[in-house]
Amino acid sequence: MMKLSDCRYDGKGTFKLADYPTSAKIDKAKRPEIEELMAKNIERMKELQDKLAAQGSEGVIVMIQAMDAAGKDGAIKHAMSGLNPQTIEVYNFKTPSKEELAHDYLWRAVCHLPKRGNIGVFNRTHYEDVLIVRVRGLWHGYNMPKRCLELDEDTFFAQRYERITNFEDHLFENGYRLVKIFLNISRKEQKKRFLARIEEPDKNWKFSAGDLDESELWPEYMDAFEKAINATSTKVNPWYVIPADQKFFARYLVSEAILETLEACEPEYPKLSEEEIAEMEACRPRLES
Amino acid sequence: MMKLSDCRYDGKGTFKLADYPTSAKIDKAKRPEIEELMAKNIERMKELQDKLAAQGSEGVIVMIQAMDAAGKDGAIKHAMSGLNPQTIEVYNFKTPSKEELAHDYLWRAVCHLPKRGNIGVFNRTHYEDVLIVRVRGLWHGYNMPKRCLELDEDTFFAQRYERITNFEDHLFENGYRLVKIFLNISRKEQKKRFLARIEEPDKNWKFSAGDLDESELWPEYMDAFEKAINATSTKVNPWYVIPADQKFFARYLVSEAILETLEACEPEYPKLSEEEIAEMEACRPRLES
Repeated sequence: MMKLSDCRYDGKGTFKLADYPTSAKIDKAKRPEIEELMAKNIERMKELQDKLAAQGSEGVIVMIQAMDAAGKDGAIKHAMSGLNPQTIEVYNFKTPSKEELAHDYLWRAVCHLPKRGNIGVFNRTHYEDVLIVRVRGLWHGYNMPKRCLELDEDTFFAQRYERITNFEDHLFENGYRLVKIFLNISRKEQKKRFLARIEEPDKNWKFSAGDLDESELWPEYMDAFEKAINATSTKVNPWYVIPADQKFFARYLVSEAILETLEACEPEYPKLSEEEIAEMEACRPRLES
Repeated sequence: MMKLSDCRYDGKGTFKLADYPTSAKIDKAKRPEIEELMAKNIERMKELQDKLAAQGSEGVIVMIQAMDAAGKDGAIKHAMSGLNPQTIEVYNFKTPSKEELAHDYLWRAVCHLPKRGNIGVFNRTHYEDVLIVRVRGLWHGYNMPKRCLELDEDTFFAQRYERITNFEDHLFENGYRLVKIFLNISRKEQKKRFLARIEEPDKNWKFSAGDLDESELWPEYMDAFEKAINATSTKVNPWYVIPADQKFFARYLVSEAILETLEACEPEYPKLSEEEIAEMEACRPRLES
């Protein structure tokens, strides 16, 4: 059975998307077993989340990036429901607002960083700025000075990859751990899911004709993903390229990635000093009287 | 007479604070003449500010860092009063809040970035995190994981200098220009101003005994400033080390630095396309009817 470590790319060698399957081909009969493993993961995540928040020294940011219908919302819902919402901060990266476009492209990511002790979830991420922005050439239309835009495409995005890596290194140095997840779906599976959105009334609301336009640029998107993952994977901030054609298994792997990262934090409830314990003990008689 | 270019350090060679005077020794009789020059600067700044905001493609961030009583508030008040407050965003870097301390040290700077088209003013800056934090060893007490804090002091701050430089380069690449100003006051002049705060009732409110504690660490602060300026000055984001013992001249030089940067933006009112002009012209009859 495919393991999380099979999905990790930490910058060694050259990343080729073709080396990473879109399906782990898990026998459907195994689904209940996998779901039980995920439930156990969530139980353990809850314990760690509690300690992480009590300690407040380290933050975890789960970043999920994918093509449409790859299962971003479902992964968050299924792999993270059960956690304490009080110390989770979710931010959805929608089409940038005018306010956001008037700042540098990392601005909204920084403004929505969770505080240390919390778990942040980025549903889509700052990588949008090297994915759709690259594929659609959106950067040509930005209201920025000429000096920022007169670069050729490769140079412009190489600069962005470098800055994103700087930014993520900086986060690691400052007590954050990132879980960068690419839900790797096949185009065939995406089409199947789009059709289901048309056919099943309860899923109609998820359908958007615009998604088809993006889908038609599939090879361009895969190329942009490959380049971005290649350039921004490091030992401390690797990418997880998770096969997404089987939802139940993708969700399980997402829970594995989050759990592994929480474990790496080794969170502990804060221990009081002898002095603080003495002060606390001094409160006992007041409560008992 | 000392010029702005005499104050600029752009990373060439090694920066030695001792090479930069704390006084330009301008004859007091010249003060009215200097103030007239500053008034002219402000007039020109107003024109450029208007175009900058209309165009919206480039932002300017004035960053003022200095020892206490060096004239930060006065420089902002005198060199920038007269500008349109609608497109200026001022942020004061006070003692970090709990919320701010729970994030990385660049977080509050990013959260308070002006939008492009605006002029941002940082009264004190993210450099606090390599100045007071270094001199006072505050970083030892941070609630961060061990891996972030077990570095020796030089390595820890070299990392911060590099990240600050990355951050500022990123801002430049994204349409911002920084005006990094160090108001370079002598310890003797600082003492004189502290005494004035005690002696003049209208200045009493500015006096803080805590400022004296910082002043006693003068050599340590000068060393921290020298190291920070040395490590973070670049051709695109130089530091201006402005002699601050004579307030009127320091303010004039601050206005020079802001003006020069605004000029470098070469802002222009947006020009409409022929199509847009035609659309606009089509509105004329409706207004005239």
